[in-house]
Amino acid sequence: MTFSFGSFISLTGDEVFHSTRLSFAFVNLKPVVPGHVLVCPRRVVKRYAELSFKEITDLFKTVQEVGIVIEREFKATSLTFCIQDGPDSGQTVDHVHVHIIPRKKGDYENSDEVYTELAKHDKDGRPSRSLEEMAKEASWLSTFFRLEGR
Amino acid sequence: MTFSFGSFISLTGDEVFHSTRLSFAFVNLKPVVPGHVLVCPRRVVKRYAELSFKEITDLFKTVQEVGIVIEREFKATSLTFCIQDGPDSGQTVDHVHVHIIPRKKGDYENSDEVYTELAKHDKDGRPSRSLEEMAKEASWLSTFFRLEGR
Repeated sequence: MTFSFGSFISLTGDEVFHSTRLSFAFVNLKPVVPGHVLVCPRRVVKRYAELSFKEITDLFKTVQEVGIVIEREFKATSLTFCIQDGPDSGQTVDHVHVHIIPRKKGDYENSDEVYTELAKHDKDGRPSRSLEEMAKEASWLSTFFRLEGR
Repeated sequence: MTFSFGSFISLTGDEVFHSTRLSFAFVNLKPVVPGHVLVCPRRVVKRYAELSFKEITDLFKTVQEVGIVIEREFKATSLTFCIQDGPDSGQTVDHVHVHIIPRKKGDYENSDEVYTELAKHDKDGRPSRSLEEMAKEASWLSTFFRLEGR
């Protein structure tokens, strides 16, 4: 089974670790910290304003479920949730996506440096993770979910 | 009618411009840009993980409605949505709140500087806005909503 992220990217079980009827969650090519994952509506929709009531409901219930697992399994104490909605907010893929970032005391010198990292993470020249590494993480994370939609 | 924001802050129609059965939206004491507003569940709950399914549904439908109005009325082209969930994410009030920030081309030299501003906005020594100014804005914004819960 494949999932579309924007118009040009196809994701499979190598990245996707959880899916519901209307949403899916996947690991990141360039996480800003370990455990930085993304949750999307299945339908390729650019802006948050375009989501249906059912999509919103499913998306943010999924965000809650994924956040709980990510915080616990990455031994974090807090979470940052963020949506860059539209080109002038830093959105780089035309598909609504919620960033979930596990946070710990002292993970950044200033707690909000995480956003500077978020801004850079898909633009800078850092090498991407290998597909093997991503698949291993996705496979591990999938064990915490019942994959209803797959 | 009053709304609790955390354990110590009471808000009234001077700040609150929209409310639903389970959520409310209010203007900011120190907005990082004009139109920066907050949306909360009515129940004082510290972490996102504690929200019920109904609260999540109501909260993010309200976020969508408020975002559409804010983007249009502040003549923006994009939105930043953000939740600081827990003490190590920069959360300063123990009550789940979604930041909605209208964004425009060139509003910051680097688009993601908005987060640095967000990190500082309730900590630095900048003067707060006057209650008169907030009440005027809340009154204006309330005209775009049907205040179901009031």
